[in-house]
Amino acid sequence: MSTDDMKKGSVEVIPDINEDFSAWYTGVVRQAKLADYTTLKGCMVIRPYGYALWENMQAHLDARIKATGHVNAYFPLLIPESLLAKEAEHVQGFAPEVAWVTHGGEKELEERVCIRPTSEAIICSLYSKWIQSYRDLPVLINQWANVVRWEKVTRLFLRTTEFLWQEGHTCHRTEAEAINEALKMLEVYERFYAEDLAIPVLKGLKSQSEKFAGARDTFCVEALMKDGRALQVGTTHDLGQHFAKVFDITFLDEDESQKYVWQTSWGVSTRSVGAVVMTHGDERGLRLPPRIAPVQVVIVPILFDRSREETFHYCSYVGEILSEFRVELDDSDKSPGWKFSEHELRGVPLRLEVGPRDMEGDQVTMVRRDTGEKRPVLIEDLPGVIKETLDLVQDELYRQALVYREERTFRVKTLAELSDGLEEVRGFHHAPWCGDVICETRVKEETKATIRLLPFDQPEEKGACLVCGKDGRWEAIFARAY
Amino acid sequence: MSTDDMKKGSVEVIPDINEDFSAWYTGVVRQAKLADYTTLKGCMVIRPYGYALWENMQAHLDARIKATGHVNAYFPLLIPESLLAKEAEHVQGFAPEVAWVTHGGEKELEERVCIRPTSEAIICSLYSKWIQSYRDLPVLINQWANVVRWEKVTRLFLRTTEFLWQEGHTCHRTEAEAINEALKMLEVYERFYAEDLAIPVLKGLKSQSEKFAGARDTFCVEALMKDGRALQVGTTHDLGQHFAKVFDITFLDEDESQKYVWQTSWGVSTRSVGAVVMTHGDERGLRLPPRIAPVQVVIVPILFDRSREETFHYCSYVGEILSEFRVELDDSDKSPGWKFSEHELRGVPLRLEVGPRDMEGDQVTMVRRDTGEKRPVLIEDLPGVIKETLDLVQDELYRQALVYREERTFRVKTLAELSDGLEEVRGFHHAPWCGDVICETRVKEETKATIRLLPFDQPEEKGACLVCGKDGRWEAIFARAY
Repeated sequence: MSTDDMKKGSVEVIPDINEDFSAWYTGVVRQAKLADYTTLKGCMVIRPYGYALWENMQAHLDARIKATGHVNAYFPLLIPESLLAKEAEHVQGFAPEVAWVTHGGEKELEERVCIRPTSEAIICSLYSKWIQSYRDLPVLINQWANVVRWEKVTRLFLRTTEFLWQEGHTCHRTEAEAINEALKMLEVYERFYAEDLAIPVLKGLKSQSEKFAGARDTFCVEALMKDGRALQVGTTHDLGQHFAKVFDITFLDEDESQKYVWQTSWGVSTRSVGAVVMTHGDERGLRLPPRIAPVQVVIVPILFDRSREETFHYCSYVGEILSEFRVELDDSDKSPGWKFSEHELRGVPLRLEVGPRDMEGDQVTMVRRDTGEKRPVLIEDLPGVIKETLDLVQDELYRQALVYREERTFRVKTLAELSDGLEEVRGFHHAPWCGDVICETRVKEETKATIRLLPFDQPEEKGACLVCGKDGRWEAIFARAY
Repeated sequence: MSTDDMKKGSVEVIPDINEDFSAWYTGVVRQAKLADYTTLKGCMVIRPYGYALWENMQAHLDARIKATGHVNAYFPLLIPESLLAKEAEHVQGFAPEVAWVTHGGEKELEERVCIRPTSEAIICSLYSKWIQSYRDLPVLINQWANVVRWEKVTRLFLRTTEFLWQEGHTCHRTEAEAINEALKMLEVYERFYAEDLAIPVLKGLKSQSEKFAGARDTFCVEALMKDGRALQVGTTHDLGQHFAKVFDITFLDEDESQKYVWQTSWGVSTRSVGAVVMTHGDERGLRLPPRIAPVQVVIVPILFDRSREETFHYCSYVGEILSEFRVELDDSDKSPGWKFSEHELRGVPLRLEVGPRDMEGDQVTMVRRDTGEKRPVLIEDLPGVIKETLDLVQDELYRQALVYREERTFRVKTLAELSDGLEEVRGFHHAPWCGDVICETRVKEETKATIRLLPFDQPEEKGACLVCGKDGRWEAIFARAY
């Protein structure tokens, strides 16, 4: 490698994933150019490669949201303080972390406004105007937007002052219909993670102390990261009639009586990019699921001066016959070894090497990022083999993540067992819980683990609460979490 | 129409387009449910139908931006005051209209931050870190984002406190390359408006007094609305090295010397939705170009009790064979006449009526929104005829808009002629201008018209300045504008 290559290279050594997972994470995110810090604390820039990944994720999730009957809209960024304050629990939950706008131009505002930390307040104020009759229901609206929460401790993608997300806000005629919606969207999220991002998730109910500020119940999907910590990657909320009552969202029902609507809200954010990194990454960097990878196949010419032009010509032809895939031809003047490392760092699912021997044999050498498997493929077979192999990579990443999670799923009976378990191997720990917040808090104080969720499938016999020993009301899943 | 229909109906009478264009505009935007006001002055909500229109526009423009080699990214919403203040002209231009965040949660911030009114400052601060060598150039990045400008007078889509847009920000090695980029993107905008939105635009240079704060030159595309007023629908800026110098964006060139980059920026916003309304709308409401219409074809069953089920069945079949188009079947229980008005108000390009006679004849009755033309089409011919007719509608809307603009384009020689001309018929008025801001201001004061642009095609002989009589340096195009 020439010194010229060194100067413009981006492949620095990334921190060891087994020694310092947190440094590894930040190193990968920055060196793969997914995102970077800015001068304003907690505000990140999503760089083109990271944004292309997000755009692909968005496209899949948006299609799923629309396929379940929802439409997109766009509500204002700014929320007057009096609106935010209407629902008591809601404002209490969010006030400590909202950004307040006090001046517009050179003038002080009569009433300060906040940048939306979430949009229930502004959206409910409009639903109250729009909804008159049972014929206007259900209202099934989603928006893609940025939100701001003034966080004390931040980390790229996982917890940032500003983040991007989608937030669904729906209104229904009956309680049952609203609960059904919250559960349906949880399933949409589960399938999005499993099928598009190759991330297995657990579904369940949050404990009351972990629910969304203003909700009646919060449901969630949780994934296990490669350091054994849990990450909440999506939530859906049964809002009951809490917001309907304070924002006066009523409708005239068929029986001619005025009723409050039943509501839900649900969201998935750019945090999901962090989940992809921490679920699939390895010591060499990212491993991206083909379905969302900005580049699915990279072609790397192995150049020798005498066959330079011929090689480029051959590579271009390979690119052309693969036009149905997202293909990049790396014709930069870096060395092949450098390019291999760089595209591994970037997590490109398949690499096609083209050297003199490949050209002689009318083939390319295909290398899988997930397994490292390397084999020659005849040009005539290439589109079919690529299609098939991308599917295999997608499945293999899911399989590995599922195996990892299963190996890190335990059943414990006492606080001591949980504490010891977490010291030994971090992961999801099932344990019986009486349902009391005192025991929940005790676990948190002693082990730093929280109840991630209460699974929908509950065993008939729960056993005794891991803390107080009283009858378990729930089987809960505990973990240390992001 | 039953009273029940009346109660849930949305077709109110819209104001007369010829009597009060401004009231007509607001009426159409609100009654077609494109957008609505919120409790916060100047902040609008884009409702699902309006947002679907914007999504289609976005998809076309995004594809054009990517096809010209640009990639998307996402930069922070918040800009520290010190960054915004770096480029003197820039801060002077924007400070009077930015929203200032002074508190994060319960704490006052050490330095206040503004919500981006545009992103040059934050983006340049990052480019300065990212760009090292000539090999890093060009940087061709775009972002889709919301921005906030505290406007005193607001109007739905045309001038709102918050709006959505795309903003491109590029860095180049040479001056010529940067200017070429600014002109290329202007052409991308021109084609987007002409081909996707059916809006003919004029391209040209802004006068120095109308340019973007911080730019060396601003280029623009301008369209003529149906009240004879001009609307600036897109701008591209040659930023020269103004920002590069204050943000220290340098690169090591091949000749081993450090140089400042040359930059451009360019944007198109949700204002373009307003342009679609005011270019194509008529006394009955919207007329949407098929390429961007959320619904291209609406099927309206003409129901009689005895053939009710049969009619729905027939309509569903029609919907199925048109699956390549964006089709809506209106199976609500409103009367046919009501539905006709409603879908005309919403600007759906084609309506297919299905009544007993249509079913007998294996046909539908197709009605064009743009011309009102009505004719039977055999089911077997339907997909082909729809495809063809949608293209015809797209072309016809463009043709009508072009004819309108040509009929409203004049050539005047003196300020008096301009003034009289504007009183008689508003439109684009070509006139010679000496290039002096004093004359430009005089025109504005006397006629309320501004220089919309200086066309690229300049006549050799310009004649005498319409105000001072000195030699014309430019042929300028004047109009009253939004």
